[in-house]
Amino acid sequence: MSKKNNIDKLSIFALGGVGEIGKNMYCIQYANDIVVVDAGLKFPEEDMLGVDIVIPDISYLTENKDKVRAIIITHGHEDHIGGLPYVLKFLNVPLYATKLTLGLIESKLKEANLLGETKRILINADSELQLGVIRATFFKTNHSIPDSVGVALDTPEGVVVHTGDFKFDQTPVNNQFADMHRMAEIGSKGVLALLSDSTNAERPGFTPSERSVGEELEEIFRKSKQRVVVATFASNVHRVQQVIDAAIATNRKMTVIGRSMVNVVNIASELGYLNIPDGMLIEPEEVNKMSADRVVILSTGSQGEPMSALTRMARSTHRKIDILPGDTVIIAATPIPGNEKYVGRTVDELMRLGANVIYGPGSVSGVHVSGHGSQEELKLMLTLMQPKYFIPIHGEYRMLRHHGMLAESIGVEKENIFLVDNGDIVEIQNGSARKSGKVQAGNVLIDGLGVGDVGNIVLRDRKLLSQDGILVVVVTLSKQEGNILSGPDIISRGFVYVRESEGLLDEANKIVTNTLNRLMSDNVNEWASLKTHVKEALGRFLYEQTRRRPMILPIIMEV
Amino acid sequence: MSKKNNIDKLSIFALGGVGEIGKNMYCIQYANDIVVVDAGLKFPEEDMLGVDIVIPDISYLTENKDKVRAIIITHGHEDHIGGLPYVLKFLNVPLYATKLTLGLIESKLKEANLLGETKRILINADSELQLGVIRATFFKTNHSIPDSVGVALDTPEGVVVHTGDFKFDQTPVNNQFADMHRMAEIGSKGVLALLSDSTNAERPGFTPSERSVGEELEEIFRKSKQRVVVATFASNVHRVQQVIDAAIATNRKMTVIGRSMVNVVNIASELGYLNIPDGMLIEPEEVNKMSADRVVILSTGSQGEPMSALTRMARSTHRKIDILPGDTVIIAATPIPGNEKYVGRTVDELMRLGANVIYGPGSVSGVHVSGHGSQEELKLMLTLMQPKYFIPIHGEYRMLRHHGMLAESIGVEKENIFLVDNGDIVEIQNGSARKSGKVQAGNVLIDGLGVGDVGNIVLRDRKLLSQDGILVVVVTLSKQEGNILSGPDIISRGFVYVRESEGLLDEANKIVTNTLNRLMSDNVNEWASLKTHVKEALGRFLYEQTRRRPMILPIIMEV
Repeated sequence: MSKKNNIDKLSIFALGGVGEIGKNMYCIQYANDIVVVDAGLKFPEEDMLGVDIVIPDISYLTENKDKVRAIIITHGHEDHIGGLPYVLKFLNVPLYATKLTLGLIESKLKEANLLGETKRILINADSELQLGVIRATFFKTNHSIPDSVGVALDTPEGVVVHTGDFKFDQTPVNNQFADMHRMAEIGSKGVLALLSDSTNAERPGFTPSERSVGEELEEIFRKSKQRVVVATFASNVHRVQQVIDAAIATNRKMTVIGRSMVNVVNIASELGYLNIPDGMLIEPEEVNKMSADRVVILSTGSQGEPMSALTRMARSTHRKIDILPGDTVIIAATPIPGNEKYVGRTVDELMRLGANVIYGPGSVSGVHVSGHGSQEELKLMLTLMQPKYFIPIHGEYRMLRHHGMLAESIGVEKENIFLVDNGDIVEIQNGSARKSGKVQAGNVLIDGLGVGDVGNIVLRDRKLLSQDGILVVVVTLSKQEGNILSGPDIISRGFVYVRESEGLLDEANKIVTNTLNRLMSDNVNEWASLKTHVKEALGRFLYEQTRRRPMILPIIMEV
Repeated sequence: MSKKNNIDKLSIFALGGVGEIGKNMYCIQYANDIVVVDAGLKFPEEDMLGVDIVIPDISYLTENKDKVRAIIITHGHEDHIGGLPYVLKFLNVPLYATKLTLGLIESKLKEANLLGETKRILINADSELQLGVIRATFFKTNHSIPDSVGVALDTPEGVVVHTGDFKFDQTPVNNQFADMHRMAEIGSKGVLALLSDSTNAERPGFTPSERSVGEELEEIFRKSKQRVVVATFASNVHRVQQVIDAAIATNRKMTVIGRSMVNVVNIASELGYLNIPDGMLIEPEEVNKMSADRVVILSTGSQGEPMSALTRMARSTHRKIDILPGDTVIIAATPIPGNEKYVGRTVDELMRLGANVIYGPGSVSGVHVSGHGSQEELKLMLTLMQPKYFIPIHGEYRMLRHHGMLAESIGVEKENIFLVDNGDIVEIQNGSARKSGKVQAGNVLIDGLGVGDVGNIVLRDRKLLSQDGILVVVVTLSKQEGNILSGPDIISRGFVYVRESEGLLDEANKIVTNTLNRLMSDNVNEWASLKTHVKEALGRFLYEQTRRRPMILPIIMEV
C-alpha cells in the first residue's frame, strides 16, 4: 500500500457503463491523481434518431486534465476503446494497453489522425505502473478477445480491482489461462473495492468454453458438401482462429470479407494472435473458381447489420460472392437485444436463396458462447478477491442488482455493496466508504462530425418529424394594405402524399387564408402572433381530419 | 365432398400472415365463392415511421365483393381480428365467430361505429355453415385465448383445413380440450390441403401446459409478504383465470388496471369465460387501504409498452398505484422480438423502486408458456390430418421452412409442400396442385385516420427527416433586377441546435447568396434550376462540414 495522508480520500466513479451496456469508463481518483480505465462507445438508443454513436461526457476529466495520469484499456472491444478518438482530442494523456488492444486502438487513431499526438505505452500482464500515488498491476483474464486484462490499482487507501470483461475458460483456445493464481494473491493481500463485470449476472451456471464452438464448427464444416459461410464478431479472434482450424481440418481454404473482419484479421495476424498457414487465405474473387466443398467464407454481419457483408450476400447484392442453394451459413453470435429482427430477416433471405442456416441462441446452435462469465464465475471472482466493498459495473441496473445479490450470497456485507449510476461518487476514507455526491456524467451524441451538437431539442424535432412529417406554409403579406399578396403555399414532406391529398391541402390552404385575413382585419399584425395563430388553426384542422400532428412551419414574408 | 364441375378450380392464397408475424388473412376460393379466414393487423416495422398499424391489402376481395361469402374468425387475437374495423368498411360481408371472439370483435366494431352495419353470426365448434359451394365445419383447439377453433372447408375439390393458432394442452385451464377426435375424423376422411400455424416451428419438443403457470403463480403469491403485480397479455383469459385462482388460494383480492385489461376482463366475465367470485374484485383506489399481503394487481404492460399501466407504475406516474419496496412484480410474458429493450427498461425501473421482479423467458421464469405448439405438436397435427398438400402459414419465412421440413419428416411429399408469399395462389384442380400466379397483396399502412395515404414517398421523407432534420431556405428575388431582395433566411429543424451553430449557418447563408448571385448574373432564372443549384451547393457544403445530409427545402419567391 502506498503512503497515505489522512485528509485525502479515494473516489471511485463511472463516467459510463453502469445502468447501460456500453461506453465503459471508470475513474479512480486519489487526491491529485486520476486513473481512467477504458473509454468506450455505445450504440444509440432507438430514440436518438440520426445519432451515429454515443460517448461519455468527460467534462470532469477535462476540467481536471492536469490530474489525469493515464487511461488504461482492459481490452480491444468497441465498448471499451471506441470513445478514444473523441476523448483523446480533449484529453491528451498517456494510454496504456496490451499488444493486441494497442494494435486495434492504433488502427482507430490512425483513421482519426491522432496517432502521432498520442503517447501510447505497451503493457503486458506483468507490467507495473506508478501513476502518481497509484500503482497499477494487471492480471490476465479470459474474454472473447485475446490480451484482456484486469487491473489492480494500489492507492494509499487500499487496492481497487477492476476485472475488465471476463469469463473463466479452463480450456482457452489460445492456451492463455486466466491468471487465477495472481487473482488469489491479490485477494489474499486484501482488496478494498472490487469493480466487476455484470453482463451475465442474470445467467445461472458457468459459461461454456469457447473451445466447444470449435468442435461444433468442425462438425458442420465436415458435413457440408458445399461452401460454408461463418459470420461472427470481427474482434473475436479466438473464434476466427477456430474457423481457421476447422477449415484446415476439413481441407478448406478461407476468404475474409467485410471491412472490420479484414482489418482485425490483418492486425491480429501481424501481431501474432492468429495462426494462419501460408496459402490458407484466398481472395474473394477466387472463391468461384474453387470447388465448393473446399471453401470457407469468414464474414461480418452476425447481427444482421444492414450494410454488412452477410446482409449483402443474403440480398444478392454482394459484389463478389453469391449464396448458392445448398451452401451452409453459420451465424456464430447471439443477437444483441434490438437486433433480433435484423438477424431474422437475414436468415429469411438466406433461406430463400436455398442456404442451410445455422442460427439462434448459442445454447441452441452450439456455434456461439458468451465472452462473459455467468453467475458461478462471478461468484468465483468475488471469492478470489474477497473485497471489502463491491461495486458491480458493466451492465444495466437489473444486472448490477443481480450481481449485488451474488456478492451478498458469498458473504460481502449488504451495506458494502454500492449500486451506482454514472457519475455517482463512492468515496472511501480511513477504510470507510459512502456515496458522496456526483460528478457530471451523461451521453455525448456523435452525429457525423458533430460531437455534442445534437441535443434534446434537435432530437425532439427529429422525433416529431419522423412521426408525422412537416408542413411548410409560405405566405407573403402586404403590411400596408393588410392583405395576402401571394400564397399561402403549403409544402408537405413526410405528412401525406400530396397527389392523393389535394382536397385536404386545399382545405388547409383556406384555413390559413381565413385565419390571416381575420387577424389582419383585427389589426393583429405582429409576426409572432400571426405565426402562432396559423400554427394553431392549421394544427387543429389537420388533427381533426387526420389524427396526425405534423410539425407546422409558417413562413410569413412581408413586403 | 360437395359436387364438382370439371372446369372450376380451387384457389388458396394468403393476403397476410406468411413471411411475417401478423395481419393474418387467408382466402379459399372455389369458382364464384370465396371464404376468408381471419382479418388481422400487424404492428409497424421499425422503418414504417409514424405508422400506427398495418392491415392487409384487400383489393382482390373488394374487386370480387359479390363472391365473398363470409369472413370466419378463428380466435380473438389482434393479429386475427384487428383488421376488421377497416376491412368491414370496404367489405360488408357476414362475419362468423365463436362467443368470446365475437364479444371482443363487437367491442372493436362499437368503437369504430360499425356494429350496426355488420352481420354477425355466432358459431360454436359444432356449427356447420354452407357458404356457396363451400361447407365449413369446426374443431376446438387450445390456444392462449379461449374459444379458439380450427376450420375445415369442404370444397368440390376436397377438404381444406385451417388450424387457426393452436397448441395441444392435455391439461387445459378451462378443461376445454382440443378436439383430437374430430381432427382424427377429418383426417381419416381425407384432407386435400392443410394450412397450419408455424409460429413455433423452430422450437423442439412440446409447449408446456398453461396450467404449469398457475402452479408457479400460486407459489410466488404465497411467498410474497406484500403486494403482487401480475402483468400479462389482456387477451390471455386462461392466464387471468389462473391469477384469480392463485389470488383466491392465497386469500388476496384483485384489482384490474390498464384499459385493455379492464375491457377483456369485463367481456370475458360477462360472457362466462372468467369465474370471478363475488367480492373478489376491488377498485384500484382501495388498494392502498388494504393490507399489502392481501392484494393482487392485474395489469397491462407485459411488453414494456411506454403508455401501459405497468410502465406508468414503474415510472411512478400511475395515478392510483405506487410500487413500494418489497412488492413483487411478475411479468408473465416473453418479450416479442423488438420489445426486449422496453421490457428491460421497465424491469430496471421497477427494481430501482425496490420491487422484486420476476421476468425473462417463460422457460426461466416459469410464469409464461407459449400459446403455440412446438415441433412435436405441429407433427401431431400433421399426423392427425395426413394432408395431401401442405401450406405452412402464420410465420416468418424461416418458420414456414422449418414447418415444411417437419411435414416432410412425417411423410408429406416434398413437392406437395408449398412455401408461399402473401398473394401467391396455390391452385388445385382435379386433385393436382401448383403455384399459379398472384393476387394483389401487401401492406396498407394506417396512420391516424388515414388508411393507405402513407406510402413509400412519405415514409422515405420521414426517414430522411428523422436522420438529419430539415433546413428551409427562404429567399426573395427580384426577377427584373436580378438580385436578392430579402434573405436568404435559413430555418433549421432537427439538424443542429441553431444557437450553437451560428457560424455554420452564417457560412451556409453565404453559400446560398453566392450561388444565387452567380446564377442570376449568368441569367439562369428558372425556378427549378435555381432551386436545384441551391440544394446541391448547400448540401455539398453541409456534408463537408458535418457529414450529415439534412433535407433541404429551398423556397424562392419572386417579386
